[in-house]
Amino acid sequence: MKFSTSTFVALALLPLAVISAKVNPLPAPRSLDWLDTTAIAIDLDRLHLELANYNEIVHNAFDRSLNTVKSLKWTPAAVEAPISKYQPFPTGLAKRDTNASIETIKVSINDAAADLQFGVNETYTMAVSSGGIEIVSETIWGTLHAFSTLQQLIIYEEGAFQIEGSVKIWDAPLYPHRGILIDSGRNFLSLKLILQQIDMLALSKLNVLHWHIEDSQSWPIQLQSYPQMVKDAYSEREQYSAQDISYVVEYAKQRGVRVMPEIDMPGHSRAGWKQISEDLLACQDSWWSNDVWSEHTAVEPPPGQLDVLNEDIYPIVANIYDELSKLFTENLFHVGADELQANCYNFSTILQDFFKANASRTMKDVSQRWLDRTLPIFYDKPERKLVMWEDILTTPEGAHNVSKDIILQSWNNGIKNIDLLTGLGYDVIVSSSDHLYLDCGYGGWVTNDIRYVDDNSGTNEVFNTGLGGSWCAPYKTWQRIYDYDFTANLTDTQKGHILGAEAALWSEQVDDTVLSSKIWPRAAALAESVWSGNRDPTTGFLRTNQLTQRILNFREYLVALGYTPSPLVPKFCLQNPHGCDLYYNQTVMDQFGTN
Amino acid sequence: MKFSTSTFVALALLPLAVISAKVNPLPAPRSLDWLDTTAIAIDLDRLHLELANYNEIVHNAFDRSLNTVKSLKWTPAAVEAPISKYQPFPTGLAKRDTNASIETIKVSINDAAADLQFGVNETYTMAVSSGGIEIVSETIWGTLHAFSTLQQLIIYEEGAFQIEGSVKIWDAPLYPHRGILIDSGRNFLSLKLILQQIDMLALSKLNVLHWHIEDSQSWPIQLQSYPQMVKDAYSEREQYSAQDISYVVEYAKQRGVRVMPEIDMPGHSRAGWKQISEDLLACQDSWWSNDVWSEHTAVEPPPGQLDVLNEDIYPIVANIYDELSKLFTENLFHVGADELQANCYNFSTILQDFFKANASRTMKDVSQRWLDRTLPIFYDKPERKLVMWEDILTTPEGAHNVSKDIILQSWNNGIKNIDLLTGLGYDVIVSSSDHLYLDCGYGGWVTNDIRYVDDNSGTNEVFNTGLGGSWCAPYKTWQRIYDYDFTANLTDTQKGHILGAEAALWSEQVDDTVLSSKIWPRAAALAESVWSGNRDPTTGFLRTNQLTQRILNFREYLVALGYTPSPLVPKFCLQNPHGCDLYYNQTVMDQFGTN
Repeated sequence: MKFSTSTFVALALLPLAVISAKVNPLPAPRSLDWLDTTAIAIDLDRLHLELANYNEIVHNAFDRSLNTVKSLKWTPAAVEAPISKYQPFPTGLAKRDTNASIETIKVSINDAAADLQFGVNETYTMAVSSGGIEIVSETIWGTLHAFSTLQQLIIYEEGAFQIEGSVKIWDAPLYPHRGILIDSGRNFLSLKLILQQIDMLALSKLNVLHWHIEDSQSWPIQLQSYPQMVKDAYSEREQYSAQDISYVVEYAKQRGVRVMPEIDMPGHSRAGWKQISEDLLACQDSWWSNDVWSEHTAVEPPPGQLDVLNEDIYPIVANIYDELSKLFTENLFHVGADELQANCYNFSTILQDFFKANASRTMKDVSQRWLDRTLPIFYDKPERKLVMWEDILTTPEGAHNVSKDIILQSWNNGIKNIDLLTGLGYDVIVSSSDHLYLDCGYGGWVTNDIRYVDDNSGTNEVFNTGLGGSWCAPYKTWQRIYDYDFTANLTDTQKGHILGAEAALWSEQVDDTVLSSKIWPRAAALAESVWSGNRDPTTGFLRTNQLTQRILNFREYLVALGYTPSPLVPKFCLQNPHGCDLYYNQTVMDQFGTN
Repeated sequence: MKFSTSTFVALALLPLAVISAKVNPLPAPRSLDWLDTTAIAIDLDRLHLELANYNEIVHNAFDRSLNTVKSLKWTPAAVEAPISKYQPFPTGLAKRDTNASIETIKVSINDAAADLQFGVNETYTMAVSSGGIEIVSETIWGTLHAFSTLQQLIIYEEGAFQIEGSVKIWDAPLYPHRGILIDSGRNFLSLKLILQQIDMLALSKLNVLHWHIEDSQSWPIQLQSYPQMVKDAYSEREQYSAQDISYVVEYAKQRGVRVMPEIDMPGHSRAGWKQISEDLLACQDSWWSNDVWSEHTAVEPPPGQLDVLNEDIYPIVANIYDELSKLFTENLFHVGADELQANCYNFSTILQDFFKANASRTMKDVSQRWLDRTLPIFYDKPERKLVMWEDILTTPEGAHNVSKDIILQSWNNGIKNIDLLTGLGYDVIVSSSDHLYLDCGYGGWVTNDIRYVDDNSGTNEVFNTGLGGSWCAPYKTWQRIYDYDFTANLTDTQKGHILGAEAALWSEQVDDTVLSSKIWPRAAALAESVWSGNRDPTTGFLRTNQLTQRILNFREYLVALGYTPSPLVPKFCLQNPHGCDLYYNQTVMDQFGTN
């Protein structure tokens, strides 16, 4: 499913554009050629869109971009330059052609009706000259990406809006599925903050918000079919109405972002379900028992799993799914299927009877039963694609038979599981925890934890000198994220099964206060990796060093827009390109060869 | 310098108060006894302060507390309860005595003129009964702490403000120096965010803002003596005027918080100084050279140290110090003295000549020269106390003779260095990086760093499965911070040399966007440790488990006030006391014995 490989290779053979402008849009376009660097003024008051047929989404997107450009008056905060401090760098912004002033953006869209769904064409081309700006795209979703690029091209300098020169861009994503995962089940996330994530996704050309909306801790969704479920929201304020959800979906669509819901079943199930009937669940009132491992019932508190053998659950699952399926317009629906705990079912009489009746039965039979009973429910329309965590296939608790129609999201064992799953012929979304989990490295959050006691003997230092209690420590830096070659050593057939990647922020230690700072700008490193790649298209070498000033500038851009992405470095490093490099040698990463 | 040890021991022998109220002020007072739990209404519209003599600071503090209580209408977000989910917990809020309504707060202050300086008496007692509230303190600074407690005692329930019952509190800090370190040199911190830190310090009874105001990366201070220095601020916006600094100092004083400035010399010196003359510095334009270790000139970019042997620097140091000394009213002044790099002085002709002239000379002679020349400058008033990083004594680059008058701030080797320094008779501020550095665990921030490349061989995983490039990884959790027994195994004489502790947040990866979330609520764990201790006063056992609901509630309180402290756990853990404990056994920590 990797897009346009042949086109990509063909373009990679073209001579590289000389990078000589201050602007450095993120993600780097697939191809960007400055034709000259005589700056071209832009008359924003007279600038208007030429589009054959009025399209509300495109016009709104254009107005947003234009207003952002006008109000920000952006000048790049971090610009690229050679590492030497003595050699002055040619900045590109030469004399501005005061006769030329761009007033027109001509947009051509071939298929304005194409719906925002997985795999829709997002390609665009853009040409900027003193005569105006021309954007050509197959769909309006490509046009939106062009606007994201354009607003990063226009800068404010010497009292005027301008583009640094004539430029041609051809651009297209490497992968159709590019996103972040947010989790409003462990802690509530407000609508305001969710919308802000969508803004930043659009700016970085990510196109998926994977919304892990509930979990065993809370059920924030107001449903008509089972209004009692939302009693397990954290408070009356911390809930999503149907209107809220539709608003998020529509807001995202306006910005080219798909919202993929996740209802995690049959594990991670407690809140909400127990308000319908305690009989739907197993072990929901048990001690999670990490302290007595033989009795542990959950990977984290509180426990709870749907009692798969209880036939009463399926009509309820169907009703809930049906109502949610109508709220989310996205073809992809994520139904969880991760981290099923065998011990939990010790609390279920039905399941214990099931095992007793035939000694050869295992958890695989339980998971298979779940699949057999739910797939007919979940495939509720022809376009439906289901996504599940890889656990349904890769763990001892997984099912016997997992259809190749099911997209598997991989989070364990890094490249090894990507190799395994694609080798078996499954379509895969890459979310390897060792590279793409944004919540790692903050220590453990469970309480009454003696592992933090340091008795000063020097021997009980494991939680200090070790990983600090975070299961997926260390913290994944933007460099770590960008350097991840998740297709390394795969065959072309295997590569074709990679649909894309998601960076995941689980919310055990996240709510509104830190949501944006934990996701951004790190997700922007992934954004470039899945849009135009983490390697130089000509040499094949990792281009992390080239991303440095681009991502530092992008972070400042987000700050200027009012968001709260984390700073990556002392501001000195922005103002002194490569002055904070570990290696003076600017090609030191080339030793790692091509992918 | 540990306060009131004898009083503390005496009180520890008294019967423990039965914890039966929902409120759980942080830090836990030294002594708090509920006399009954018939809730007492408080008429906030009629509530007034009785104080013998009008005192602006006390009246303002009272108004702030009162307004906070009125506007927040706080009900505890996390309340303590036994771990069992079946046994209902007596909540303490029994029938409210509708006849009683508190209208008066009587405050007695013995010495209202006592200045806010190191060691000032901060003790208070408070008695709440239906007859009113009585606060007695030696100084107004004790009164301010009483108000911080009081506003956490008053809750809003059943449509009325109330205190859960009659209560008596005696309270006093264990240590006179209790603070956080912020760093506006690596990245700028706005006045707004600095003031917010002061608000939260006051609420948690911390009393020191250690302001590491500049560093080699930037000099944000506008000085009259050398106005050119501020050219090395990051921008015109990112500067502090004298007025700004005075405003911070006065704002802090109003809240019982001392502002201790730090100008880091002679290492960590570049920005600002080089605007006066490049000759004041050594190696400021060198490559920092971590990639060629034999040539490295700094622990982080950019390099730069004052050229200690250049006599021209001392009149300039004197002028700068003099101007700053007048801006900060605090007796303690921190003058750095950490991380001097011998290699840097390879770039100084004067220093190379100095070494060549006598082969027995070492860096110790250089540091001694610095002390000998600067101490007469720095001791500019009788009350002056100097603080330096322990490096001046403990490293090979340190001085030969370090006066016992100099307070040493310890950041290396945890308890070992505390033992060493106090054993030698130095007064110590504890900031052990392995427990109290809040910036640890976020990975490395230097760029062009090949260590993040994972070649998928499984062997180059050190930055993923290891510490992730953060020199002081892992992240210090609130439990780790609270569990730190920094006086373990010390003699009473040594304990007497501990002035207190500071949690430090260095700003390489910090600016306004994350300042509060990286400091809070973790600093509140230290706040309790240095105010009333991390161990149960009766049993001597670590009371981390008791702090859990207290700090979770305190974090929600800060959120309600509009700050952005990080969430520590899923909200489920607030709503289900001890439901997220690792050990069901509520006394599992007792195995670690008494300190």
